[in-house]
Amino acid sequence: MGVVNATALADLSADDLAALLEEQRTAYEQLKAQGLKLDLTRGKPSAQQLDLADDLLRLPTSTKDASGVDVRNYGGLEGLRELREMFAELLWVEPDQVVAGGNSSLSMMRDCLVWMMLFGAVDSERPWSKEDKVRFVCPVPGYDRHFTLLESLGIEMVTVAMGADGPDVDAVAALVADDPSIKGMWIVPTYANPTGAICSQDVAARLAAMPTAAPDFKIFWDNAYALHHLTEEEAKSADILTLASAAGHPDRPIMFASTSKITYAGAGVAFLAASTGNVGWYLGHLGNGSIGPDKVNHLRHAEFFGSPQGVRDHMVRHREIIAPKFAEVDRVLTERLGGRGVATWNTPSGGYFVNLDVVPGTASRVVALAKEAGIALTPAGSSFPYKQDPDDTNIRLAPTMPPLAEVTAAMEAVATCVLLAAAEKAAA
Amino acid sequence: MGVVNATALADLSADDLAALLEEQRTAYEQLKAQGLKLDLTRGKPSAQQLDLADDLLRLPTSTKDASGVDVRNYGGLEGLRELREMFAELLWVEPDQVVAGGNSSLSMMRDCLVWMMLFGAVDSERPWSKEDKVRFVCPVPGYDRHFTLLESLGIEMVTVAMGADGPDVDAVAALVADDPSIKGMWIVPTYANPTGAICSQDVAARLAAMPTAAPDFKIFWDNAYALHHLTEEEAKSADILTLASAAGHPDRPIMFASTSKITYAGAGVAFLAASTGNVGWYLGHLGNGSIGPDKVNHLRHAEFFGSPQGVRDHMVRHREIIAPKFAEVDRVLTERLGGRGVATWNTPSGGYFVNLDVVPGTASRVVALAKEAGIALTPAGSSFPYKQDPDDTNIRLAPTMPPLAEVTAAMEAVATCVLLAAAEKAAA
Repeated sequence: MGVVNATALADLSADDLAALLEEQRTAYEQLKAQGLKLDLTRGKPSAQQLDLADDLLRLPTSTKDASGVDVRNYGGLEGLRELREMFAELLWVEPDQVVAGGNSSLSMMRDCLVWMMLFGAVDSERPWSKEDKVRFVCPVPGYDRHFTLLESLGIEMVTVAMGADGPDVDAVAALVADDPSIKGMWIVPTYANPTGAICSQDVAARLAAMPTAAPDFKIFWDNAYALHHLTEEEAKSADILTLASAAGHPDRPIMFASTSKITYAGAGVAFLAASTGNVGWYLGHLGNGSIGPDKVNHLRHAEFFGSPQGVRDHMVRHREIIAPKFAEVDRVLTERLGGRGVATWNTPSGGYFVNLDVVPGTASRVVALAKEAGIALTPAGSSFPYKQDPDDTNIRLAPTMPPLAEVTAAMEAVATCVLLAAAEKAAA
Repeated sequence: MGVVNATALADLSADDLAALLEEQRTAYEQLKAQGLKLDLTRGKPSAQQLDLADDLLRLPTSTKDASGVDVRNYGGLEGLRELREMFAELLWVEPDQVVAGGNSSLSMMRDCLVWMMLFGAVDSERPWSKEDKVRFVCPVPGYDRHFTLLESLGIEMVTVAMGADGPDVDAVAALVADDPSIKGMWIVPTYANPTGAICSQDVAARLAAMPTAAPDFKIFWDNAYALHHLTEEEAKSADILTLASAAGHPDRPIMFASTSKITYAGAGVAFLAASTGNVGWYLGHLGNGSIGPDKVNHLRHAEFFGSPQGVRDHMVRHREIIAPKFAEVDRVLTERLGGRGVATWNTPSGGYFVNLDVVPGTASRVVALAKEAGIALTPAGSSFPYKQDPDDTNIRLAPTMPPLAEVTAAMEAVATCVLLAAAEKAAA
């Protein structure tokens, strides 16, 4: 976030503020007149990124796995060995700790939560649904689908602040120490959705080791962006499984990842990685309702990547496409809002989002203004449980899907809306 | 089942029986000496059948659906429209009544049951898990995975007999009329697993219309073999959705089907078909844990088949491969066991199984003898809830996977084991 030569709204005289408000109203009317139809709502890869994986459409060339088993038939609940080995290396775990599943890590998280509710975790005394209350710690801002999932299961959410090096671990440790109803927490450890934060080794080590009142406390370690670097400085995720094991809590973390934002968003492969105890627990429940995952798609992916390095190389090609879009978001915001004192935002080094904090009390107004001008933004509050942002300040921007020119146009529009909403509030 | 010139064991003199027992013991020792390793356990397609679908490996040629949406990206929870239309025609329902999912109809059944337990069905007063007891009617013999799924969820099973035209509908009607804890039933309506029975229009109509004490009674209509004919006389499944709707119970049936035994067993597409109310209920819960199915695989299948007729044509090619295996099962059983009064079996006109009933009290012994001789059979009792066959008489044979020559060898071995066990029992 650069600084430009502009005056903060708080330092403007009443006349200058009125002039600014008028100027922004005019700009906004001109914006509406353009009849734009742009979308920054969801973290979806662009067609250009999806094209990178189109060799998948002609794979696999073989129909047998390395041990000669026909991948077209039933079986192999834990997924294709070769692909599990590949992602075990990328996620710094052992192959026996990895399950390769269907096309959705979110569905794997749902299954884990549902089975914990119905049957209990591997180390639970009873099903979670038999407890008076089940609560989860949720760093905010966070991923809306995590919160929706918990809400659908009647799991209460307790928020802690997400900092630059991960969740506020003092707050987490204080919450979990005394309250046995707190059964778990979410975290997106690397390039968090939406703040881009990277959970530090220290924070991860404390989360792994902290005493918890619940004996079956679980960390849902959603490493959705583990390999999704936006710069050449590639963050290495903390090795939560080893940390937890070393701290005497091997069954505490369950890691999730997928190729949804590596190959195809709708037709990739999801992974679960955890202690062998947790893996056994997961496969045991999975086997009651599945005869095995789509191993053809597993082999398709294994052939496509060739090796763990093939995955890393592929991510560089993504970076070349999307890094300029993130740079453009920062450029427009800096030029239009820098020095105005109306917004702060991050310049993420990975992941899929820019986290924009506008003048408190105006996020909903900004989103509504943008919508009226044809710019779809994620609804204000989406990054908080129950969609309630207590400060009405947070907006999640997802710049990967539109072409670069549309990112520019959309961000110019967002800047106008942010300035207008801020000026309205200051003048009110 | 033919009849040959042999004497029933019950009509043999003690000397002749002793001679037969000795003869079968010798035959069994010779069998063991062959060191066979054959498998008739599971209803899996053979490699030759899977080969029929290998054009899938080079599909799809497009990456957009008929409306221009990129199938590679997220979204479209209900599945690809073109594929839903195709299978709506094949299953005699409307496209809006069809959801195309992942690779497993069993997983769709599991999700329905789990959501009924956690949240209740679309017409439930409360979640099923809040009831004192939940019970299901299970026609027997039936599909072991259905029973395992119910058992895992703590749903009690009440059995009724499976007849030639479907479940004993008088027994079903009597059970469900007075007991509100009976929340549902399973049925494999067409070419049932394992008896090959076809649910008649009359039985289906009664199931659709019968009064039930539970207002939210559900029929899990697992039409896994709807299109899997073994003769040119192709059975048409009863149109359960229309029957139920006409009877004023539109939300009673939920139909399941898949291409697991049409294209690839591990990499096909599963379908759910139901009232629009049920479909809305299903998608509502699905959306909490999924951003959409693998639409690339949907398009791959839509292109592969081309049309509903393309699916039917494809099934003829399967029939040409597997019908001779079923004929061979019948030939060997008839030649070896006909007239002996030691076994009855069916000659199915579709599906994947032959249902063999041996002398009561000897099914476990037959399976154990076969195992020792290197022939893997489904464990005795598998086709009953809790794996308990009260008469120890039922054995499920699955002849599709082995090559024809192995089917012959395996069935000769099975016949020897059946005769030996029967002679042992008669002589005891």
